[in-house]
Amino acid sequence: MLLNKNIPWSYIVGKIRLEIAAVSIYAISFGIFHKLLNLHHIMLPLSVPAIVGTVISLLLAFRSNQAYDRWWEARIIWGAIVNDSRTLIRQIKTFMNDPEYSVTADDFVRRFAKRQIMWCYSLGNSLRKKDPMLHARDLLCADEQRFVAAHGHIPNALLSLHGKDIQVAMERGWLNPFQQVELDRTLTRLCDAMGKCERIKNTVFPTTYGLYINFALYLFIILLPFGLTEYLGIVVVPLIILISASFLFIEKMAIHLQDPFENKPTDTPMTTIAATIERNIREMMEDFNEPKHDRLAAKVSDEEFYVL
Amino acid sequence: MLLNKNIPWSYIVGKIRLEIAAVSIYAISFGIFHKLLNLHHIMLPLSVPAIVGTVISLLLAFRSNQAYDRWWEARIIWGAIVNDSRTLIRQIKTFMNDPEYSVTADDFVRRFAKRQIMWCYSLGNSLRKKDPMLHARDLLCADEQRFVAAHGHIPNALLSLHGKDIQVAMERGWLNPFQQVELDRTLTRLCDAMGKCERIKNTVFPTTYGLYINFALYLFIILLPFGLTEYLGIVVVPLIILISASFLFIEKMAIHLQDPFENKPTDTPMTTIAATIERNIREMMEDFNEPKHDRLAAKVSDEEFYVL
Amino acid sequence: MLLNKNIPWSYIVGKIRLEIAAVSIYAISFGIFHKLLNLHHIMLPLSVPAIVGTVISLLLAFRSNQAYDRWWEARIIWGAIVNDSRTLIRQIKTFMNDPEYSVTADDFVRRFAKRQIMWCYSLGNSLRKKDPMLHARDLLCADEQRFVAAHGHIPNALLSLHGKDIQVAMERGWLNPFQQVELDRTLTRLCDAMGKCERIKNTVFPTTYGLYINFALYLFIILLPFGLTEYLGIVVVPLIILISASFLFIEKMAIHLQDPFENKPTDTPMTTIAATIERNIREMMEDFNEPKHDRLAAKVSDEEFYVL
Amino acid sequence: MLLNKNIPWSYIVGKIRLEIAAVSIYAISFGIFHKLLNLHHIMLPLSVPAIVGTVISLLLAFRSNQAYDRWWEARIIWGAIVNDSRTLIRQIKTFMNDPEYSVTADDFVRRFAKRQIMWCYSLGNSLRKKDPMLHARDLLCADEQRFVAAHGHIPNALLSLHGKDIQVAMERGWLNPFQQVELDRTLTRLCDAMGKCERIKNTVFPTTYGLYINFALYLFIILLPFGLTEYLGIVVVPLIILISASFLFIEKMAIHLQDPFENKPTDTPMTTIAATIERNIREMMEDFNEPKHDRLAAKVSDEEFYVL
Amino acid sequence: MLLNKNIPWSYIVGKIRLEIAAVSIYAISFGIFHKLLNLHHIMLPLSVPAIVGTVISLLLAFRSNQAYDRWWEARIIWGAIVNDSRTLIRQIKTFMNDPEYSVTADDFVRRFAKRQIMWCYSLGNSLRKKDPMLHARDLLCADEQRFVAAHGHIPNALLSLHGKDIQVAMERGWLNPFQQVELDRTLTRLCDAMGKCERIKNTVFPTTYGLYINFALYLFIILLPFGLTEYLGIVVVPLIILISASFLFIEKMAIHLQDPFENKPTDTPMTTIAATIERNIREMMEDFNEPKHDRLAAKVSDEEFYVL
Repeated sequence: MLLNKNIPWSYIVGKIRLEIAAVSIYAISFGIFHKLLNLHHIMLPLSVPAIVGTVISLLLAFRSNQAYDRWWEARIIWGAIVNDSRTLIRQIKTFMNDPEYSVTADDFVRRFAKRQIMWCYSLGNSLRKKDPMLHARDLLCADEQRFVAAHGHIPNALLSLHGKDIQVAMERGWLNPFQQVELDRTLTRLCDAMGKCERIKNTVFPTTYGLYINFALYLFIILLPFGLTEYLGIVVVPLIILISASFLFIEKMAIHLQDPFENKPTDTPMTTIAATIERNIREMMEDFNEPKHDRLAAKVSDEEFYVL
Repeated sequence: MLLNKNIPWSYIVGKIRLEIAAVSIYAISFGIFHKLLNLHHIMLPLSVPAIVGTVISLLLAFRSNQAYDRWWEARIIWGAIVNDSRTLIRQIKTFMNDPEYSVTADDFVRRFAKRQIMWCYSLGNSLRKKDPMLHARDLLCADEQRFVAAHGHIPNALLSLHGKDIQVAMERGWLNPFQQVELDRTLTRLCDAMGKCERIKNTVFPTTYGLYINFALYLFIILLPFGLTEYLGIVVVPLIILISASFLFIEKMAIHLQDPFENKPTDTPMTTIAATIERNIREMMEDFNEPKHDRLAAKVSDEEFYVL
Repeated sequence: MLLNKNIPWSYIVGKIRLEIAAVSIYAISFGIFHKLLNLHHIMLPLSVPAIVGTVISLLLAFRSNQAYDRWWEARIIWGAIVNDSRTLIRQIKTFMNDPEYSVTADDFVRRFAKRQIMWCYSLGNSLRKKDPMLHARDLLCADEQRFVAAHGHIPNALLSLHGKDIQVAMERGWLNPFQQVELDRTLTRLCDAMGKCERIKNTVFPTTYGLYINFALYLFIILLPFGLTEYLGIVVVPLIILISASFLFIEKMAIHLQDPFENKPTDTPMTTIAATIERNIREMMEDFNEPKHDRLAAKVSDEEFYVL
Repeated sequence: MLLNKNIPWSYIVGKIRLEIAAVSIYAISFGIFHKLLNLHHIMLPLSVPAIVGTVISLLLAFRSNQAYDRWWEARIIWGAIVNDSRTLIRQIKTFMNDPEYSVTADDFVRRFAKRQIMWCYSLGNSLRKKDPMLHARDLLCADEQRFVAAHGHIPNALLSLHGKDIQVAMERGWLNPFQQVELDRTLTRLCDAMGKCERIKNTVFPTTYGLYINFALYLFIILLPFGLTEYLGIVVVPLIILISASFLFIEKMAIHLQDPFENKPTDTPMTTIAATIERNIREMMEDFNEPKHDRLAAKVSDEEFYVL
Repeated sequence: MLLNKNIPWSYIVGKIRLEIAAVSIYAISFGIFHKLLNLHHIMLPLSVPAIVGTVISLLLAFRSNQAYDRWWEARIIWGAIVNDSRTLIRQIKTFMNDPEYSVTADDFVRRFAKRQIMWCYSLGNSLRKKDPMLHARDLLCADEQRFVAAHGHIPNALLSLHGKDIQVAMERGWLNPFQQVELDRTLTRLCDAMGKCERIKNTVFPTTYGLYINFALYLFIILLPFGLTEYLGIVVVPLIILISASFLFIEKMAIHLQDPFENKPTDTPMTTIAATIERNIREMMEDFNEPKHDRLAAKVSDEEFYVL
């Protein structure tokens, strides 16, 4: 969960250190050659880099917008997962009609709730290409573990189990047909959220746009000193570095935002959100224990992580 | 409810007084050094700050847009809470089928309505990190207070109680299965609205963008006098302050809009909206009394509050 | 319904006459002082107002967008009210199952349809702070008038009556439970539309943005003649007025669009739309009379009205 | 269906020939007067038209966006009409439960399908203010024609007939209550699509924006030669015409896109889409004949038509 | 699936080689004529191409946005197809109520699942104007092949078969009426997705916008050397080529993104997505075989394909 605390400048500058180095080398060599060879007649009106600068500005604004939209959509999807997890548990608890208050029905609901917690962790881990079975031993019973392990797509297999259990509950008379259909709709929404995450994960931002922006950016940086040499001597070097940095930064930020499930410091805090869901669901099951320490531990490091 | 009345300029200027002070010190010292040391050959073409100015303008427009969208989304969510609260009460009143006009059923509806009022106040307070149990003694019965107090997430616990009550009503034959499912959908929408508020509350605007805009803004302000010194003497000082102020203001405004649940003068008027909901629900229950004075009092100060 | 006919320029210029007067006084006095005191050394490079002009352009584009979105959303909501009113009447007509073709059932549908017409007029009037009971004597029976008059929120009270009637129809066996729930959903959509109008009505555009744009605009206008004085003598006066006017206009247009329910010439043509709904509903009830003259009269003046 | 073929330049230039003529006269007379009267001291820095040019660019971008959105929304609505027409016929075919395979039921479905085809043509024609009863003799039976002709709003009357038929089918036991409600929802979506088309048709783009953009555009064009006269003699004339044309074009394109139901070459290809729906529905009814020639003929001219 | 790997620059430059050649010829001939005829007095202030450049930048940003939106919408639609395919199979599996575990019911579900796989491949192929019956022999039984082949719109015919099968299942008592309606809704969503693809496929980006941008772009390129000739001699040639290229690229990228179903290297990876759906559905049917090699082969070439 992108925290609102200070980030060391070193971290941020580190992101563009290679580019800055290249620009510095260019600027310094430009300064030296210019002085040595006395090339004062080779210069450009500043309007030329300015025209290129306007195009780049608009494209960087376009790119920032699209990257932000991907990042924000990822956050909206995980927000919907929180909502639908709460709704699913509320529904299963208040729909179940078991006049005998049997242990079986109670166990059934408890297993269902644990499976939903598992689904959240598992989806997060599979998006990050980590082990999607990480907390399976805690949260699934042996049968479920065996069933799920046979599948390539763990979260989808968990949704299938949810579906099967709802069918079982209807057969036993715990749910009526309307309630089955209503619970199935909540599963459909969870299935949609899962697919939307995969869409964002698997669709790269059109590579050519990125390449093009780089092309235009370096064209701009290369032209810049020719426009400035008329006015300034060696002062041109830091100036070019600073102006280049201000353009390079925007691009880097967009690149970091645009892939919100890549296990990078900037991605969506899925483990933290899953732990929140676990805490909510446990509360709804009137189990007021905190989530297990290893998951919380993961969460804490998570919080340290998402600082960008 | 952001009121349409005049705001003293002092208040607005106050928001950027530190930044303005720093810029003034820089501009004045620049003026003095320049005069004293006669550095007229150190100057920049105005196009250089202008290029940086174009980038900043686009980024500030981008930031204003995102901040406005967060603020407006918060307002839309609370608008939906108003609508779904009215819908919930209309449904519970017109769905209830109690041919005997029993006191029990009447009490049931009345308790349900009060609980919905409580939910609105409680959600607003928990988003502002104030006491979510504030009006519990007025609006919940003793049993409900005890149940809810055991939970960490009060508004979610209230929704669970709603769900349980709907189940009870169906068991007693007051509602048919379709009506139960339809009421549950209204609860689902309320649950979504609650989760959306939490998403906006818990997702900070990417910190690096803020940092970057600051970096580019101060680069621009630092470059500005070098571009103007050619033309003007001491007049450069107020000019730089005014131009800087016009950029700094936009950023501040975006920062103030972007967090609509932070208990700041600019946030969403949740107490006012909750009081409106209370008044609507009371009317629908044919109780034409005004909400209690302490809540109205809160509302009035609220109105004074949201003036930005 | 914003008509596509010519608007006298005088009307449009009238909107900014005060601002234009102030700018003219400034421009003329600037011209006189400059000439008299021979202040030719006090001048600015045109790039300085140009930088401020770029920021203002972007902010005005942002503001125009948000204002247009509010105006367009208002139009979408009233479009949805048209659709849902037609749907509601189609549903009540085709769902009613009355094998005896009783007069009671026929009257019931007729009363329902009239009440929906009333709801549309009443919502429009209450948004404009006019009398929401205006056509009540025509469109509601005595009982309904008495019930509704006791409420502060007339349109919401009318929806409650709709809900109650649907319940009555189900009790009498005219509707089955699915149809009751389906009709209730149409009411929910109407309730949402009503709440959305109130949200737009009650949420002002962040005042500080408006103030800030004014600040930047006047800074720009004040700087402008200093940038032009080098080139032109007295011609600067009309030029400054024209350029200022072109910026001031955009802001005024945004201000006029942003509040679509304020009983101003530019707002949403709610009376016209309500009359269209009345005509559609009457047709569906096979009553091919035109709406009453006084409502049409209102409509005509309405059409003259919404010309901006 | 806006075809991807070449458009003669003459057509495009024709759209702005009046404006271009006016600009040419202005530019030529400017050139002559300037030469004759030797007014070389009356000139402007190019930055002045450039500032106005930036504002206009942003407003033209804003206007292009809104016009494109209206055009694209119109296309989305007609796309939804295609989808919901297919859905409606699939539903009526697969929901009908007629164990006796009676001729009556078969005729019923066939009449229903034809009426839906009629609805599509009729909606397109009424939006274009053409005869909405155009294909009624082919597609409606005599009773239906009589009923519909009595109404002012033909497509809405057809939806009423759909609703009545669904009621009849339920009474005869061909549909169960769930299926009736589900079919009614498809009707509701068609009713929404119809209302959305009418909203776009009846809401003009705020006239003042258009007027204002014209004002700013001509201010820009009038200022332009004063900025160029310093550098160029008679070459200024074609240059001003070309630059003016590039601005005038954008506005014209926006104006042409913004009204997608105006029976102009640029509007939505509603007849083509309706013919596609007819072909799809006939296929679903296992009637593999092509739509009648006169409708196809209309379609072909349609295709020639929508080339902009 | 637009892969995140390096693209040879030659490929990208190839896309604009014709335009670049034309610009080069223009720039070189300009250089030669200028030198030969000594036309130094024919020059323009750089602000003139800069004004045109600002308009073009904004229009290219507008066009990039619309093109990106079309491409992203196509991706969202295919994401929804993934989700709804999974949902459809989960529903058919968990809704089927067959207490005798008959072979017939099992076969029925298996055939249903295969048909859904077929639908995905078939939709992709028909959008690309390839053979929509490509994998029919593997995935459909003989009866289905015969039925479908008689239709012009294969994917729509497959949805009709789905609908018929659901009806059959209800008649045999395998599904209850709620479940039939719920499954039909999933079919409706698939039908919507199909229609949305067709809408994007069949609606070309307004041709006039493209023509206009070309007009403005070449006006800009033609003006550019007149603005630069003052400062530079022969260096103007590469400079003009590079600046022109940076504008031409953006347009080309937009053109390539805007048609996501055109069987070009840049379109939506529909075969890959269909193979993913096949793998998911097979897993849900507990058939852990990979999709057939020929489909995978297609997929692999697909992956090589979508690199832009």
